[in-house]
Amino acid sequence: MASSLAPGARLLDRTMALRERFDQVDISALLVTHPANVFYLSNFRGSAGMLLVTRDGVTLVVDARYATAAAALLDGPAAGAALDLALVESSYEQTVVAVVERLGSARTLSHLGIESAHMTVAQHDWLVQALAGTGAAVRPTTGFVEAGRAVKDPHELAILRDAGQRISSVMTEALRGLRPGQSEREVAADIDRAIARVGFERPAFDTIVAAGANTALPHARPSTRVLASGDLVLLDFGGRLEGYCVDMTRVASLGPPSDEVNAWHAAVCEAHAAALSVVREGVAAVEVDAAARRALERCGLADAFTHGTGHGLGIEVHEAPRIGKRRSSADVEADVPFRAGMVCTVEPGVYLPTRGGIRLEDDLVVTESGYELLTSVPLDLQVL
Amino acid sequence: MASSLAPGARLLDRTMALRERFDQVDISALLVTHPANVFYLSNFRGSAGMLLVTRDGVTLVVDARYATAAAALLDGPAAGAALDLALVESSYEQTVVAVVERLGSARTLSHLGIESAHMTVAQHDWLVQALAGTGAAVRPTTGFVEAGRAVKDPHELAILRDAGQRISSVMTEALRGLRPGQSEREVAADIDRAIARVGFERPAFDTIVAAGANTALPHARPSTRVLASGDLVLLDFGGRLEGYCVDMTRVASLGPPSDEVNAWHAAVCEAHAAALSVVREGVAAVEVDAAARRALERCGLADAFTHGTGHGLGIEVHEAPRIGKRRSSADVEADVPFRAGMVCTVEPGVYLPTRGGIRLEDDLVVTESGYELLTSVPLDLQVL
Repeated sequence: MASSLAPGARLLDRTMALRERFDQVDISALLVTHPANVFYLSNFRGSAGMLLVTRDGVTLVVDARYATAAAALLDGPAAGAALDLALVESSYEQTVVAVVERLGSARTLSHLGIESAHMTVAQHDWLVQALAGTGAAVRPTTGFVEAGRAVKDPHELAILRDAGQRISSVMTEALRGLRPGQSEREVAADIDRAIARVGFERPAFDTIVAAGANTALPHARPSTRVLASGDLVLLDFGGRLEGYCVDMTRVASLGPPSDEVNAWHAAVCEAHAAALSVVREGVAAVEVDAAARRALERCGLADAFTHGTGHGLGIEVHEAPRIGKRRSSADVEADVPFRAGMVCTVEPGVYLPTRGGIRLEDDLVVTESGYELLTSVPLDLQVL
Repeated sequence: MASSLAPGARLLDRTMALRERFDQVDISALLVTHPANVFYLSNFRGSAGMLLVTRDGVTLVVDARYATAAAALLDGPAAGAALDLALVESSYEQTVVAVVERLGSARTLSHLGIESAHMTVAQHDWLVQALAGTGAAVRPTTGFVEAGRAVKDPHELAILRDAGQRISSVMTEALRGLRPGQSEREVAADIDRAIARVGFERPAFDTIVAAGANTALPHARPSTRVLASGDLVLLDFGGRLEGYCVDMTRVASLGPPSDEVNAWHAAVCEAHAAALSVVREGVAAVEVDAAARRALERCGLADAFTHGTGHGLGIEVHEAPRIGKRRSSADVEADVPFRAGMVCTVEPGVYLPTRGGIRLEDDLVVTESGYELLTSVPLDLQVL
């Protein structure tokens, strides 16, 4: 695909939609500090960078390291979005205050929203103090930009569909290449190389390769353990394409699997199918989780399923919606109804400490009547 | 090298040293939320996990995903450190409050320190509210554990020396392998594979491969741009070994360099040598930066040096000390005197927008009389 930064008009749509919700949380401007949100609204991707969204404009605040890149961006695809650029001289916070003061003279920024899950206590304390004289008060917000990001627009879906196909090809090849004698870390390095070769910018997270008993650790790190005949091998990896993440998991057996392993695999397949069977617009995320959980319960493996059934995917590899158990009586997040255009994983698993584990993970787009799979590799336990 | 987690006795030393400084900031316990600090004090490495350090004990708080790994850790190398384990049931914050309440009955936790640069406003607000009934008050701290981490202990230095040799071998090989026709991204993937092959857990950060005019971007991302004859190529990458990061930069020229490029390279070499010449215990970090800056000024390239001269290295690829310009009249960080055992980079560079850039980066340990280089690849502009 050609250059895939969101066009300026799309960025304008996103900031306009954001501003329309300002009144709901009683803010007159928003200081965006979460890098994923900065990218979503401006196409800017650096390890630092803040965005001040007011009712009239958007100012990207970056330091000297990113000056050239940011300027090129604003002249390029993001041009239509009418972003201003402010360069940091001493600190980000000081520059933000200077921008607020400058804009404030034209139009009062009485309530400056901040992203409370993406601003540290130290930054907050500094900002509150520095804004003391400007008449602007700081107001915490949570998940405000993320709420807009949960439903993907056509630009994002095109990238995610492409990424789903590419990551599936890496998985097919990776499963085929497994053989005794390689270490988990070597297999992971080969996978990372394949991820780069098919065009991803980078792995979406640290690639997981777990063999034998290591498969019992849901977040195993690849070790120097060497794959041996008879091993169960779990591969969980993802890639980031044009800023968007996909993520998938499959398992293989180096030689005929034990009856126990076959039983785990069959149970996880059932849970996977059960979860998918309830996905469609309007269903609460928690219902999808419950469907997977009930399937594993029927197989006597309820306690072996130690994480949620899935998570949203997009600019972040974990984002809204969260598909898991209700954490409290009023868990708004778990009860969030699916909307068409949401993208998430479905990834039930079972983990039997010291014995082993199985997880099967696919990515999908929620549609009005069901879902569209982004990933496409058979769920079978591949016997090599 | 064999398993290189810090032995329990070393962890005990670290927490004891930390407790001895509790009174300086008027805290009776510290909630450690920065993953690098959690690792330093407990050997635990997960994407989540908190550590509560009281005067009597240390409790590691982790969620179910990490239960098995954490339990194995506490039985293993960290056994001597007498860590307790608390498993998260609903949320990290709730579990921390429960632990505080339990410990509080035995001994008052009147002033609970938090890491204000590593706790979000959202976490903080929740914690303050939840602790309201316990008699414990929250007190912000900044850089408290990091101050202890700046000077490396022998366990850490052994890993860093090993890592410096390994990354140097990757650099030597990577420079040798450059040739026209490869894309920046392909070169980066090859480097990442080599990083894994020599034993690193992973790259320390996103590998930078910049060719031609892209070398003018200090934080360039590898693109699909194909290396061409006559290109200047900059390689900046690092690796993480047993939890510790090293980082280095070199440049090569695909064919004879222009006079301009030769002049930049000579100037950066001078700045590199000038910075090293002043490094030793007792010198302020800002003096090292000034030495590099003066050298570039003499070459008429002062304005082309747009970042600091270096940064500390360790569990994080950027940590204390910061070697840069004084940001204000009282910049404690810039004025920090070097201490023997500190580990940092020296990496002067020049960047001429749209034309190109040069950066040369090495890692060193500060000693009483000077420094010990961890990296060892000739600084020459390699002409291929």
